[in-house]
Amino acid sequence: MTVISPPATALSLALSEWASVLGPENVSTDLPHRKTLETTSFECTSKVHAALFPGSLEDVIRCLKIARGHGIPLYPVSTGKNWGYTSGAPTADAVILNLGRMNQILDFNEELGYVTIEPGVTQRQLFDYLRSRQSKLWMDATGASPDCSIIGNTVERGFGHTPYSDHFAHSCNLQIVLPSGDIIQTGMGEMPGAKAAPLYRWGVGPFVDGLFSQSNLGIVTRMTIWLMPAPECVEAFFFKVDGDEDLPQLLDALRPLRMDGTLKSACHIGNDYKVLCGLQTYPWQETGGAAPLQPETLSQIAKKLNFGAWNGSGALYGTKRQVSEARRLVRRALKGKVQRLKFLDERKLGLAMRFAKIAKPFTSWDLSQTLELLRPLFGLIQGVPTDQPMKSCYWRKPGFNVAACDSSTLDPDRDRCGLIWCSPLAPLSGPHVHEMTSICISTLLEYKFEPMISLTLMTERTVGCVVSIIYDRDVEGEDECARLCHEELLDRLARRGYYPYRLGIQSMDVMRHTGPLGQFLNGLKNYLDPQHILAPGRYEA
Amino acid sequence: MTVISPPATALSLALSEWASVLGPENVSTDLPHRKTLETTSFECTSKVHAALFPGSLEDVIRCLKIARGHGIPLYPVSTGKNWGYTSGAPTADAVILNLGRMNQILDFNEELGYVTIEPGVTQRQLFDYLRSRQSKLWMDATGASPDCSIIGNTVERGFGHTPYSDHFAHSCNLQIVLPSGDIIQTGMGEMPGAKAAPLYRWGVGPFVDGLFSQSNLGIVTRMTIWLMPAPECVEAFFFKVDGDEDLPQLLDALRPLRMDGTLKSACHIGNDYKVLCGLQTYPWQETGGAAPLQPETLSQIAKKLNFGAWNGSGALYGTKRQVSEARRLVRRALKGKVQRLKFLDERKLGLAMRFAKIAKPFTSWDLSQTLELLRPLFGLIQGVPTDQPMKSCYWRKPGFNVAACDSSTLDPDRDRCGLIWCSPLAPLSGPHVHEMTSICISTLLEYKFEPMISLTLMTERTVGCVVSIIYDRDVEGEDECARLCHEELLDRLARRGYYPYRLGIQSMDVMRHTGPLGQFLNGLKNYLDPQHILAPGRYEA
Repeated sequence: MTVISPPATALSLALSEWASVLGPENVSTDLPHRKTLETTSFECTSKVHAALFPGSLEDVIRCLKIARGHGIPLYPVSTGKNWGYTSGAPTADAVILNLGRMNQILDFNEELGYVTIEPGVTQRQLFDYLRSRQSKLWMDATGASPDCSIIGNTVERGFGHTPYSDHFAHSCNLQIVLPSGDIIQTGMGEMPGAKAAPLYRWGVGPFVDGLFSQSNLGIVTRMTIWLMPAPECVEAFFFKVDGDEDLPQLLDALRPLRMDGTLKSACHIGNDYKVLCGLQTYPWQETGGAAPLQPETLSQIAKKLNFGAWNGSGALYGTKRQVSEARRLVRRALKGKVQRLKFLDERKLGLAMRFAKIAKPFTSWDLSQTLELLRPLFGLIQGVPTDQPMKSCYWRKPGFNVAACDSSTLDPDRDRCGLIWCSPLAPLSGPHVHEMTSICISTLLEYKFEPMISLTLMTERTVGCVVSIIYDRDVEGEDECARLCHEELLDRLARRGYYPYRLGIQSMDVMRHTGPLGQFLNGLKNYLDPQHILAPGRYEA
Repeated sequence: MTVISPPATALSLALSEWASVLGPENVSTDLPHRKTLETTSFECTSKVHAALFPGSLEDVIRCLKIARGHGIPLYPVSTGKNWGYTSGAPTADAVILNLGRMNQILDFNEELGYVTIEPGVTQRQLFDYLRSRQSKLWMDATGASPDCSIIGNTVERGFGHTPYSDHFAHSCNLQIVLPSGDIIQTGMGEMPGAKAAPLYRWGVGPFVDGLFSQSNLGIVTRMTIWLMPAPECVEAFFFKVDGDEDLPQLLDALRPLRMDGTLKSACHIGNDYKVLCGLQTYPWQETGGAAPLQPETLSQIAKKLNFGAWNGSGALYGTKRQVSEARRLVRRALKGKVQRLKFLDERKLGLAMRFAKIAKPFTSWDLSQTLELLRPLFGLIQGVPTDQPMKSCYWRKPGFNVAACDSSTLDPDRDRCGLIWCSPLAPLSGPHVHEMTSICISTLLEYKFEPMISLTLMTERTVGCVVSIIYDRDVEGEDECARLCHEELLDRLARRGYYPYRLGIQSMDVMRHTGPLGQFLNGLKNYLDPQHILAPGRYEA
């Protein structure tokens, strides 16, 4: 996507108009700030002309109108923390429209389980809101920072760890500002007094919400999110397999459990590299400064720290008896297919946290090495946001101490962590997942990166794979190498039919729909946004 | 929607072109046939100029091109059995494009649970297909005729009786012919060799499937439908309450069960009128020819036949222990809130079928009167299509014998049964459902129709209400009276915020989106179909 920069005069005229409607304090043209906004966890060449901070729906419409008047692209972000895909940087040169100030929780219903929010509402904010009301409802959280926007993640069709993990599928009642400045409400939201507006997503007539997910066709300024009732009982389970060759039969054993609803939420399976980078940074000393970490060296570490080639976790929800029956079914399905299948509830985890190294008698499992990962994971399966996974971005950063750091102070963009996520999707079927992960492993090692992979049983029928290319941006040539690795990886995966479920700004160009669907989407974009003012290049065909 | 008829010359030119591409045997202009196609179960003024029967995707495109060339509206139907809403009649004068000949099952996967079908594939056909393969997968069926199209029902966002009851939510991978004649495939369907195409609905980039549900923006010519794995165990349960005043607390007791997944499928609750019309026709003799059936008379019959003011059924799925735990939870939730809560599995039902009147010892419930309704209902909760509910269309038809008739020979349109369905939606909350049903009951009685109501816990948070206005079209003035009743009902419901989840051709005009969403949808229609060739007036704003 090549976009010609607006003439400086148009920009300066627009800036003064924006300043007059938003107040100068809500328009930033400060060079260091702009540089920060252009910074993501990989090389990004798009320029940020300025950032606008609208405080209301009316502000958004005014900003858009001025942008149209001067032909200046606007790039909306909610909080700009789309780690690994884009952070808050634009696909093409633009003025950032940061919706973070619009952070009201507008409606909440305990009985029917929903909340209506603005784009600036973060995971932390909603979590605190629910806790302060002693609500019996759970939100679903992604493993990304607690400061991520819920709407931002939902329109990107992100996923979490509870039964409501498919965020987009648990949303409705959108308020959208179209490129024209018109405001529409989806579902039954525009029907006067519609009682089911926050409860029923399809509405009457064509269902349009999907058009505004993974899209640049409108700005979502409000959304209803469904919340799940907290079950009587929740139990995590963990397992591992020791070899890559054990992975296919594991997936095939999990499929029936996912399809019949025994597993109501996504199971997660991380490989050895993935687990290690959650526990420590790169062992520069042990490897004498050489990278990547070779599978043989890793195996030795894994043996010592007691994790497998693939390490899974899942959760069981329900009444005590429902959980007990689910436990039986999981045991039966995984028997002989995994090593060390362990179930862990809040009580056992509490004991383990208190007695770390001596917890073995309670859990029959030495938790001391992996406790660091367990607490946040146990939170995530109950919708508690965490910033623990952020630490892994510092994997290749010399001198970074995982154990000692306060994760809330982390900023991978600022600290020049290299992180590119690639997230291909495969059928929930052993041979497919084996092929997909093999491509990932060999490609990353070829490019001298550790293949950190997590597999998620995203739906009853699919496995989402998140491959992290993690590197140190301060090492010369690594940005370029990571970019090439990512492109090669996407290409190899696509040639075998494994396409990503979500794109970063680094892959919008290479993963375009080129056929009739692309023409259709292009046509819609041209019709709705003839000047291509809104996020040009973002999920564009 | 006023549409000017095409000049006769344009039509006759088009007809000869259609005949030359489809073969004359696939173009019908026969007057009696056209009259049949214009006939629905209520008064319909739209004219059918002709009917086309394309046999392939290419045929569809050719038909559309000719229609565009001559400016003649085409109205696609799958099999034309959208009972109560439209049958197969058009919203405005048109040539019918009947997709019934396109009835191939193109792909089937037992392991991952899906089937890819064409619009002519009926419920019966898919059911037989699965049975002939001894598949362990279930389809979901609506209570409408086995000869209904699956795609037709899915694009209308219809629902059924198993955990896959939300049909649209369990579909993906659409092939769509746009008004331009272009063919798009949705989701990942156009990405070369995409392995997840039939498994993952959102695809990459904007999700567009919804645009083509309840819509006139394209012709869906192929779709993947997900199938659920048959559980180890299925058990139906039944209950009743004796007064309207007991309904709210019943709904409030069911809500937590639906929200926490104890009830994986929609519960159905029919009122006394609804039950009676499934068992017999109007008691003309007992009432001395007077209608409507007064609540007092009905109460006496209900007492004799042993059903309540509201009569519910639901189903439990899972392993034996899961079902047993669900049974405990249902019992606990409904304790003191319903009368006669009974659970029935295949074995008990078999006994009851064999020993009808003496089954009481096995079921502790005299089934003899209601067995007629039980077998098909027990089938529906397992995805077995039935035409039993069709009989109720003959409710007001004198001389019709429910017990004696072979339901497969029924044709309510031909037999001039009057049937209008109205399907408002309310929050799954006692007071809302009580208000919604009260409006339905009083309005229908006012217009001298029996208020036959079934409530469906369509989603975790909503109740869909289907109100049947059933009458005899052979009685003068009844068509008009039913139409007025339906309009008044829609209006009263809307004024209280209860809007239908789905529209019939009789309500497309009165239920339009008039605000910005309507303008947006109108704009899309004008952009995609500037001549308004495709189903003009259908779900149009």
